Amino acid sequence: MHNTNLFIKVKHYFSSDFKLGVLGGGQLGRMLLAETQKLDIYTAILDKSKDAPCAQICNEFHQGDLLDFDTVYNFGKKVDLLTIEIENVNIDALEQLEKEGLPIYPKPKNLRIIQNKAQQKKFYTQHNIPTADFTHFAYLEELKHSYENGIIQFPFVWKSARFGYDGNGVKVVKNYTDLQSLPEGECIAEKLVPFKNELAVIVARNLKGEIKTYPVVEMEFHPEANQVEYVICPARIDNNVANKAREIALKVADKFDFIGLLAVEMFQTQNDEILVNEAAPRTHNSGHYSIEASYTSQFEQHIRSILNLPLGNTDSKVAGIMVNLVGAEGHTGEVVYENMESILEIEGVTPHIYGKTHTKPFRKMGHVTIVNKDIDKARELAQIVKETVKVISK
Amino acid sequence: MHNTNLFIKVKHYFSSDFKLGVLGGGQLGRMLLAETQKLDIYTAILDKSKDAPCAQICNEFHQGDLLDFDTVYNFGKKVDLLTIEIENVNIDALEQLEKEGLPIYPKPKNLRIIQNKAQQKKFYTQHNIPTADFTHFAYLEELKHSYENGIIQFPFVWKSARFGYDGNGVKVVKNYTDLQSLPEGECIAEKLVPFKNELAVIVARNLKGEIKTYPVVEMEFHPEANQVEYVICPARIDNNVANKAREIALKVADKFDFIGLLAVEMFQTQNDEILVNEAAPRTHNSGHYSIEASYTSQFEQHIRSILNLPLGNTDSKVAGIMVNLVGAEGHTGEVVYENMESILEIEGVTPHIYGKTHTKPFRKMGHVTIVNKDIDKARELAQIVKETVKVISK
Repeated sequence: MHNTNLFIKVKHYFSSDFKLGVLGGGQLGRMLLAETQKLDIYTAILDKSKDAPCAQICNEFHQGDLLDFDTVYNFGKKVDLLTIEIENVNIDALEQLEKEGLPIYPKPKNLRIIQNKAQQKKFYTQHNIPTADFTHFAYLEELKHSYENGIIQFPFVWKSARFGYDGNGVKVVKNYTDLQSLPEGECIAEKLVPFKNELAVIVARNLKGEIKTYPVVEMEFHPEANQVEYVICPARIDNNVANKAREIALKVADKFDFIGLLAVEMFQTQNDEILVNEAAPRTHNSGHYSIEASYTSQFEQHIRSILNLPLGNTDSKVAGIMVNLVGAEGHTGEVVYENMESILEIEGVTPHIYGKTHTKPFRKMGHVTIVNKDIDKARELAQIVKETVKVISK
Repeated sequence: MHNTNLFIKVKHYFSSDFKLGVLGGGQLGRMLLAETQKLDIYTAILDKSKDAPCAQICNEFHQGDLLDFDTVYNFGKKVDLLTIEIENVNIDALEQLEKEGLPIYPKPKNLRIIQNKAQQKKFYTQHNIPTADFTHFAYLEELKHSYENGIIQFPFVWKSARFGYDGNGVKVVKNYTDLQSLPEGECIAEKLVPFKNELAVIVARNLKGEIKTYPVVEMEFHPEANQVEYVICPARIDNNVANKAREIALKVADKFDFIGLLAVEMFQTQNDEILVNEAAPRTHNSGHYSIEASYTSQFEQHIRSILNLPLGNTDSKVAGIMVNLVGAEGHTGEVVYENMESILEIEGVTPHIYGKTHTKPFRKMGHVTIVNKDIDKARELAQIVKETVKVISK
């Protein structure tokens, strides 16, 4: 029934009577706004912080808790189509809104599964999607028992089932001390997979079922913070491996019957197996390079997919590398970007500053894209960018 | 003195204490905002209309008359650096602000000359910049006398000295009836030059004197409305002609000692002479393709140049063609964009909708960029786009 609703709405979305609602007003929302502004789509944003990166630049800003039923429900009643820039939102409210006819993409039922890492892993297993072996525990106590009974062994990867992001909620447990330091709560213990590369593929799919993948990207992580330092597009891997990764990502999106953008993170193992690590039901850090490098940026593609418009070309015009700008260690307070002028002297460099007023160690404050026809040249320049610019406090 | 001021400001412009002011909140301002948002530069906009395309999406919006001294002066006192997106502003106020130490780019003295087409033409003549022969008249009556005395002959091009835009204020005068229909006021009569091509070159220059040109573009005009229909980058012309056009554009910027972006429109005559038609002291319709096609968009380049930052690479990643979306004839009222979905099916197509609520014949409502590695393919697709999408009223 709401498909008809969507159809009518979308038919008119370029005129002034359509209102898009977005849950979350962080940097992903901010980059999405650049696209809604381009297409003149009236956009309302809900975020808990009045200083959110989107607060001053959207058509309509609402301050409120994304995990509160009433707040999300009431916000949803004000818009014609609802989407998210963060998956940690009140799903009950979304399901109620959906029942009442509001089109919501990605679909609440997908968000419910993805929101919980244990459910997400089970989903992969159920659908024969390759993923590292794991055990699910409702409480930390169960995990400890399992270790004591010899069912799981060190080292393993502990993941909190709920609300982990940017390396929070993930820990390699190597010994008893690590085990003792884990926080309470539902979790999984996953087999530690030695891998060659971490890869990601963004899949876009619309209501018509049109589906496209972006090229496979390669992610280089910061060893301590477990945050992506470089995203490299295209990944410098064998074509067969790249094709396998794209196929698996497509399968994940297909099994979810997904609508919107799905970023599938994967491991390339030592023997070139592809294992799905996790998926994010939204625009993703691994796709930021697309703003400068791709024919269609991931943010425009997100809009196209949720509005059931034709999907854009996911190919790249040039090679692209993204460097995250994260807060330097030892700096907490009002942010200053040091040596920004120096990096602007480098060809093909575009900084994106997210508009957060305060920095803290490893906080994502922005990113820089480096594009070049030659990917090796781009990688060299990215290194210089990384070593030059510093996110510090005043 | 204000250079020191600028230096201090620019040093800190990535932190929260810097405020950029922009005179004008139309589509050029809107596309500029995409860049200030990207770099997190707090931006205040002054425009006469509360429904201006920038009104809802800037950090701070002020409604007021751009031609009123007090309005412009008071707005200027609120910001750290002032720029324009339209040249028809109160220059007296800018000069007063400049005297008081406010950095203003482009410089008020340049704007004063460019604002008046007669002064602009005289400037070219003074500096040996090739331009079509012309005569200057303080009043229309003088022009009529001049015709009656045989000093000027039909056909000639009449141009209003002040406030012409998009073909308003320009008319080919072929006979006495045309002459009788001209509006009063200061004007010039220009020799009608038969030309092969209309070309444009955008020059960027910063305070340090760093200077760069974008590639030469070719403009195809609508025969009736005298508005650009297609902008093609790169222009499909001989390299020698292109080099000559770039050199002349550089000379214009150099003679103005210009800071900011200067769009120089030129005629390529039948014998491959280049004549400067006119210049615009700002981002320009002929540079919109750069958002998708260039390493550095003209809007980012404008920010770089006025903030005295290193200029970005002006090369293109791919060929780009821009099609203006103007209001269809016979349609006045609330706007609807017809067949937008169909053009989104075409590869490399990006629509930009400026957020104007009402259309009228030939009003600029948006544009579409078509990018492709092959310029001939892009030109084909641009034609399809042009023939498919219609800007009509409800």
